[in-house]
Amino acid sequence: MAYTAQVLYDFSAEPGNNELSVREGETITITNQNIGGGWIEARNSRGEVGLVPEDYVELGKTPAAGGSTAPLDLTFFDSQAPAPASTTQSQTSNGNDPWAVFDTNASGGFSNNWAAQPEGTETGKNSNNAWGSTSYGHPQAYQGPGVEDDEWDDEWDERKSSGGYAEGDMGEGGAMNRGGVHGSSMKIALNKGEVGPVWEYPEIQLDCVVADPKKGSKMYGLKSYIEYQVTPNTTNKPVNHRYKHFDWLYERLLEKFGSAIPIPCLPDKQVTGRFEEEFIKMRMERLQGWMTRMCRHPVVSSSEVFQLFLTYKDEKDWKTGKRKAEKDETVGVMIFSTIEPEGVPDLEIHEVEQKCEQFSRFTKAMDDGVKDLLTVGNEHWKRCTGPLPKEYQRIGKAFQNLSSVFTSSGYEGEATLTDALTAAGKTYEEIAQMVAEQPRKDLHFLMETNNEYKGLLGCFPDTIGVHKAAIEKVKEADKLVAASKITSAEKVTMGKRASSMSYALQAEMNHFHSNRIYDYNRVMQQYLEEQVKFYETIAEKLRHAHSQFTTM
Amino acid sequence: MAYTAQVLYDFSAEPGNNELSVREGETITITNQNIGGGWIEARNSRGEVGLVPEDYVELGKTPAAGGSTAPLDLTFFDSQAPAPASTTQSQTSNGNDPWAVFDTNASGGFSNNWAAQPEGTETGKNSNNAWGSTSYGHPQAYQGPGVEDDEWDDEWDERKSSGGYAEGDMGEGGAMNRGGVHGSSMKIALNKGEVGPVWEYPEIQLDCVVADPKKGSKMYGLKSYIEYQVTPNTTNKPVNHRYKHFDWLYERLLEKFGSAIPIPCLPDKQVTGRFEEEFIKMRMERLQGWMTRMCRHPVVSSSEVFQLFLTYKDEKDWKTGKRKAEKDETVGVMIFSTIEPEGVPDLEIHEVEQKCEQFSRFTKAMDDGVKDLLTVGNEHWKRCTGPLPKEYQRIGKAFQNLSSVFTSSGYEGEATLTDALTAAGKTYEEIAQMVAEQPRKDLHFLMETNNEYKGLLGCFPDTIGVHKAAIEKVKEADKLVAASKITSAEKVTMGKRASSMSYALQAEMNHFHSNRIYDYNRVMQQYLEEQVKFYETIAEKLRHAHSQFTTM
Repeated sequence: MAYTAQVLYDFSAEPGNNELSVREGETITITNQNIGGGWIEARNSRGEVGLVPEDYVELGKTPAAGGSTAPLDLTFFDSQAPAPASTTQSQTSNGNDPWAVFDTNASGGFSNNWAAQPEGTETGKNSNNAWGSTSYGHPQAYQGPGVEDDEWDDEWDERKSSGGYAEGDMGEGGAMNRGGVHGSSMKIALNKGEVGPVWEYPEIQLDCVVADPKKGSKMYGLKSYIEYQVTPNTTNKPVNHRYKHFDWLYERLLEKFGSAIPIPCLPDKQVTGRFEEEFIKMRMERLQGWMTRMCRHPVVSSSEVFQLFLTYKDEKDWKTGKRKAEKDETVGVMIFSTIEPEGVPDLEIHEVEQKCEQFSRFTKAMDDGVKDLLTVGNEHWKRCTGPLPKEYQRIGKAFQNLSSVFTSSGYEGEATLTDALTAAGKTYEEIAQMVAEQPRKDLHFLMETNNEYKGLLGCFPDTIGVHKAAIEKVKEADKLVAASKITSAEKVTMGKRASSMSYALQAEMNHFHSNRIYDYNRVMQQYLEEQVKFYETIAEKLRHAHSQFTTM
Repeated sequence: MAYTAQVLYDFSAEPGNNELSVREGETITITNQNIGGGWIEARNSRGEVGLVPEDYVELGKTPAAGGSTAPLDLTFFDSQAPAPASTTQSQTSNGNDPWAVFDTNASGGFSNNWAAQPEGTETGKNSNNAWGSTSYGHPQAYQGPGVEDDEWDDEWDERKSSGGYAEGDMGEGGAMNRGGVHGSSMKIALNKGEVGPVWEYPEIQLDCVVADPKKGSKMYGLKSYIEYQVTPNTTNKPVNHRYKHFDWLYERLLEKFGSAIPIPCLPDKQVTGRFEEEFIKMRMERLQGWMTRMCRHPVVSSSEVFQLFLTYKDEKDWKTGKRKAEKDETVGVMIFSTIEPEGVPDLEIHEVEQKCEQFSRFTKAMDDGVKDLLTVGNEHWKRCTGPLPKEYQRIGKAFQNLSSVFTSSGYEGEATLTDALTAAGKTYEEIAQMVAEQPRKDLHFLMETNNEYKGLLGCFPDTIGVHKAAIEKVKEADKLVAASKITSAEKVTMGKRASSMSYALQAEMNHFHSNRIYDYNRVMQQYLEEQVKFYETIAEKLRHAHSQFTTM
């Protein structure tokens, strides 16, 4: 039975996609509610029929909630706070939660202090948005087209099998097997390295290649999308993923590891022009960068959900694993319960605090430095692709123009000069082109690396906030004991746990530092190498132009 | 007796020069009117006493007229026009003037046509100011400080002997002797070269060095000025000249040769900051360029007045020569009477016209081309000395800043990276400086040469205007004969004279072309050579910076 719906937001149809443009407040008639993939078919007052995103209309039922970024699950510690869906499970399992000591006191006066970030500290005044700085988008001159949502929710399950490989030789129950390797009960090893606590690194580092973007379609060709081929070095078997699956993985990783490990955002989403070659290439490059960074992280890369993403066998395996991952209870601060610092003494709380402050200062300072470099780089990019080549072009034209004037003189024997002047002019036009193209060859990678680090660094305020909150709690433990809110034994346990958290943070910082050194060494080398080539080529071109003038 | 005066214009005192700042409309009291050199001593209402330029105040007498550029003496042909001082002598000597044929008809209806530039032609609508383009000043970013008058009129005679050499071995009567070598009756030889008519070039080309600017003073140290040492290669004996003497020479050359030979303007005059080192250096460089160009010209360099300037023996010789030069009657179009085309047939009037049109087109086109290059060069100059080095500096700072953040990490073993990053940052700061300094090393000379040519080309419209007027007159000769205004013999003479003028113009164009080829070859080589060095140095610096990063 057809019924009407109210349009909640403006929606602009993409040409050639059977979509219908609608405006906020408009009333439309639903002609087919069973299109699937987050779409409905509707007719407007002018009788035009087309697809409209389900979420954009009020159908008399609650619109499907968009997959917004999961906030850091600090409410885990606070039984008073209304429990969001993702934390419900954590709370129901408090009974056997080794970190429940923090939660058993949730009804006390301190629970909010614990959950909230401490006031008056550097990170205290900030939201999830890192350092309280204004939203710092990817510089316009440098990024691709406008940033919007990717495809609307459409179910993997509905699309034709276009990913994974279904060869029978791998057998059934992949997800279950992965669960055995790295289930929720798995412990994260933490070793003592030369630089202090370090994660346990696998012997062979996981890596993967994101390649071969292909246009797929569903709903009998009504909707189309891009699928990327992801091939891990462990199996060397490609699996296919759409951007929305990367986004799903990101949400899982953020939820699970976000308190302890910075999980950088995915590259920007966007709708318009998403089949444009340049955009797809750029997105693929950034997805590759993101995946490489995740692969490099020993904790993330060995996690069940990450392994599922890279090595699912078939649709069934993927769906089973997906459901399992979404039910994972070891999320938020629970991740610290799985960390086992081996052969290291417990840290005193002032040591924990000192380390935390140090990392906070460093990450803040680096965040500033990286943003500064990005600003400068962006301006340089604009100049190199804008006014500078135009100017070289004009110099080139002026030389060539003078050359043709000279040619018109009627004076004998100045062909050498006019030819040389023309050649010099063309050389400056070539230089103009080189200048305009150069940023893609060098500055681009410097910008990409710094953008990645901007993303990583943006995660630290939350991570550090969790630590600071834990530190505050431990520091108040004496009062809690005095007030008989906790036992002395529980106080000791709290201290031990803060120590574990600190070791985890130290391991993460050490991971961060070693990656940072590697990344900046590599990108600076690459940048300077290309810069040298650039200037050498210009010098060579000019030397050739110079040689064409007569020495008199 | 002291009396008051009204200030006509604002005048800002130069510090340390005993000057008094006054404002337009202010009433001042004259305390000493006999200072000389164009200055008076005055007291303002606040009782302050100092020197003020005589021309800036209304003393109840006409202010001394400034030495404006002499307009081209076309009125020579027109007895109806009020005769300016410089043409009076020409007219009184019409009796034995070989060009008097044009003048005997001055009372006829055509004399104004002859004197005026023809209407409807390209140059016809233009004044002395070349091509009718708006005044095209030296680009601001490129030139020195503001352009104004040089020192105020002060008499050479009043200053202490500070120039020339008074060794007795040269004997007396230098000016008279020079007159013997190249008097007003001397003929300018014109030969047939490979490219057509050419001036007769001396075996040894005259050259001179303008150097050693020295601050002199007069009026008992109240006023000071700069004196340049000019040393010709012929005598190798230095003479001293102030800017105003160069200016006097320019006026004489313009008056004498302006109808036939482009006499470019002197470098800009200016008052403020005239003792600033940079300004003096720049003016000297330009005076050198101007003198070199004049020396290169066979007709100009062998002229009596030019020889006087370079080789006067003492003050008396200078003064005698100066007076004689100022009385020279072979000025304006009279110069053509001294030209003797040798061994070449008379040109038909259509050939004369065709040549004239060709040169007009070429010089106009080159003028445009040169101005375009100057505009582009000026913008490039601004960018290279303004925003571009600032940007490189910021890149350098961003790298160094990141390096110090990294150093603060507390992570062991990243000294190689941080040192290399610092070095890379410093390299970009060095590059910033190189970029800012580079225009002085290459673009400067390209700009100077093009400025010189702009000046030269700006003289052609007048020269060509004289030719076009003569051509028009010849073309009307038939009518004049029919109206019995001239005889047939006179008509033939007119044709012959137009032919001579055309040969002179051709010789001048050939001189111009050969100089142009030489100058542009040289300056382009110099420019490109410095550009190559510049880019090679940058590449080398960056290669060194690159080598400091670890290859991992």
